[in-house]
Amino acid sequence: MSCTVNNIGSQGDRIAALQIKMREKGFDAALIMNPRDVYYYAGTAQPGNLLIPAGGEPVLFARRALEWILEETHVQRVLEAVGFKTIAEVVKELNIGGVLGVTEDAIPASLYNKIREAFPDFVLKNISPLVLEQRMIKDSDELQAVRDAASLFAVLHRVVMCNLCPGIKEIDLSAMILGELRKNELEGFARNRRWDASLHPEGLVASGENTWKISGHAMTVTGVGLSKSLPWGASTRVIENGDLVVVDSGINRHGYHADCSRTYVVGKATKKQRDVFAAVLEIQEQVVRSIHPGMIAGEIYRIAENAACQTGYRKYFQGYGKMQGRYIGHGVGLEVDEPPTIEPDSEIIIMPGMVLAIEPKIIIPDWGAVNLEDTLIVNESGCEIITPVGRELFEVCS
Amino acid sequence: MSCTVNNIGSQGDRIAALQIKMREKGFDAALIMNPRDVYYYAGTAQPGNLLIPAGGEPVLFARRALEWILEETHVQRVLEAVGFKTIAEVVKELNIGGVLGVTEDAIPASLYNKIREAFPDFVLKNISPLVLEQRMIKDSDELQAVRDAASLFAVLHRVVMCNLCPGIKEIDLSAMILGELRKNELEGFARNRRWDASLHPEGLVASGENTWKISGHAMTVTGVGLSKSLPWGASTRVIENGDLVVVDSGINRHGYHADCSRTYVVGKATKKQRDVFAAVLEIQEQVVRSIHPGMIAGEIYRIAENAACQTGYRKYFQGYGKMQGRYIGHGVGLEVDEPPTIEPDSEIIIMPGMVLAIEPKIIIPDWGAVNLEDTLIVNESGCEIITPVGRELFEVCS
Repeated sequence: MSCTVNNIGSQGDRIAALQIKMREKGFDAALIMNPRDVYYYAGTAQPGNLLIPAGGEPVLFARRALEWILEETHVQRVLEAVGFKTIAEVVKELNIGGVLGVTEDAIPASLYNKIREAFPDFVLKNISPLVLEQRMIKDSDELQAVRDAASLFAVLHRVVMCNLCPGIKEIDLSAMILGELRKNELEGFARNRRWDASLHPEGLVASGENTWKISGHAMTVTGVGLSKSLPWGASTRVIENGDLVVVDSGINRHGYHADCSRTYVVGKATKKQRDVFAAVLEIQEQVVRSIHPGMIAGEIYRIAENAACQTGYRKYFQGYGKMQGRYIGHGVGLEVDEPPTIEPDSEIIIMPGMVLAIEPKIIIPDWGAVNLEDTLIVNESGCEIITPVGRELFEVCS
Repeated sequence: MSCTVNNIGSQGDRIAALQIKMREKGFDAALIMNPRDVYYYAGTAQPGNLLIPAGGEPVLFARRALEWILEETHVQRVLEAVGFKTIAEVVKELNIGGVLGVTEDAIPASLYNKIREAFPDFVLKNISPLVLEQRMIKDSDELQAVRDAASLFAVLHRVVMCNLCPGIKEIDLSAMILGELRKNELEGFARNRRWDASLHPEGLVASGENTWKISGHAMTVTGVGLSKSLPWGASTRVIENGDLVVVDSGINRHGYHADCSRTYVVGKATKKQRDVFAAVLEIQEQVVRSIHPGMIAGEIYRIAENAACQTGYRKYFQGYGKMQGRYIGHGVGLEVDEPPTIEPDSEIIIMPGMVLAIEPKIIIPDWGAVNLEDTLIVNESGCEIITPVGRELFEVCS
């Protein structure tokens, strides 16, 4: 049940925890408007503006659907307010001013300018780093929601194993995955904080030469898409015998995501395909064995990079040439790609309750790609992989 | 072929036409970053920043994937530039300053602030109204792309007619629609300019009481969704005999959309269901008959409203109570909901080449909803409906 994610206790605690951070960092108030963040703190994704003073009770302003919001939220004071007038009156009543936190990466510039006009006594400051830092550590309800999302990868893998064969188009396989996942309560969107690109709800299917043609929108296997208007995801390419096929998906179920990628071979794998897969698996296993609370995220990247060097495929590790990424994974939660980003310079300390996607890949131009990604939960002693698909190079129609 | 949408001639013309408007409105340059707008003017949706001076040649800056961009764009001068340094150098070289247009509704505040820092000699001003005004009138390639998108509604309607029956869940029907449309090259996203909500790629399925429970995210039949995290779209409700079922979709095919809604009855329609459908159809027919070049968009709304009064259902026309919308339609193109919005106060003049969605509906609380939406192209003498589904109240399993 998704409703257990939003028990009143944990969300009240979330607001209190943010207020402590706000006081440390000099925020006098925060105006949270992004539906994912409002959902996190107030338990509703209806259009609402959540005013959190650095101390005292929050106020939720319903832009619309007041009755629906009242049914869902634990916030005690809820007012109807389409624009900013009522909010400005409450700000005056609470006698707050100074630094107002807004999530600058998640709201459009036009809205930002309206907020500046409506609150001339405030200086605006980006509060997203605090929100995203807090969201890195999941509570037990959130961990269960991520597990529920991860469980759908068993469905996805079954669809691929039953349908991938020579002659099928990437888009046909992608459509089958999408239909079956949606039937299993996939939400229609994989969420992230990017303004200019999102993963398709079913993720991507890339085969043959499409595994090494990398769209500019992400340093990974992207596929080439159906048209110039959206150049990533599945294409109309007909899959052939001998192809490597990468399926990479960020599944959103009831608001929480899990992220997983597997690589399939149509027919019998060649020696080189097996060698490259073994290298990717070795990198992933070294990383997974190393993860424990207290280590620095940058250290995880270095372990991955060292492992890649040992395998002899460093040149193609996480892409190649200008399209080589310097990361090995990222956090997963209300968004499919959220902090911590596991990259060389990250000093974020790994903690129990973090959900991480670890995604080593080797992409060799004019040859192919192998991608292996799992979602894992950091616990007191190490971590637990929760994506329920074997870590193999799967041969289909062999 | 989608590539015909992007022939070099029309995109060069598009930039020249924007430059004329820019000079009229006092813009010295524009920095276009939103992938849909970059695609419109430069023919690529790869990550690029398009600098358009008020006079002279545009420059496209590739944030990544330079080779891919060079394959796609007709813009003659293309440079690689991850941040704003190279762009600032070119701005200096071109000796431009003054008012810089950015699409404030389409870029996040964080990016806006970076642009302000990078171009201290410029005042930023929202250029979206000019871009969206230009995009209202489609050229012949764009009209063909919209027709191609509209053709998929025949597929959608067939899926509903073959599968809707008592006992099926909304989400199962939605999943079937989604899988079948994606197989037919539906892109994975229905695009709009809203920052906080989007239509599901397959649209929405709402049945029974879910047809009159309106989410705050839009003044229409919204459905209630699968979870509190995303409160619109199909739910797990089991559809029953006698239910009204609304299916409303904005189909994105190769970057261009079409928008259509139909209402189905499970079993034999009651007299009241037939009466309400007849009222909605009457409103739509009066509107469609009236549309011609030279009229004002607000006039279309008034014709719809008068027709609603004649039917006796004015109280439930476009929703009810606080969730009653004052609109009868909107433009459709690179986004599923774009100008002109057809609302009472709009003074936009209807012109040949506009693509409009006309969507009368009657939503009666504790009873149900009937929604009837078609996409049409305005021509020299009137308009042509392009959504290939009969305008009936469809009875299934009767």
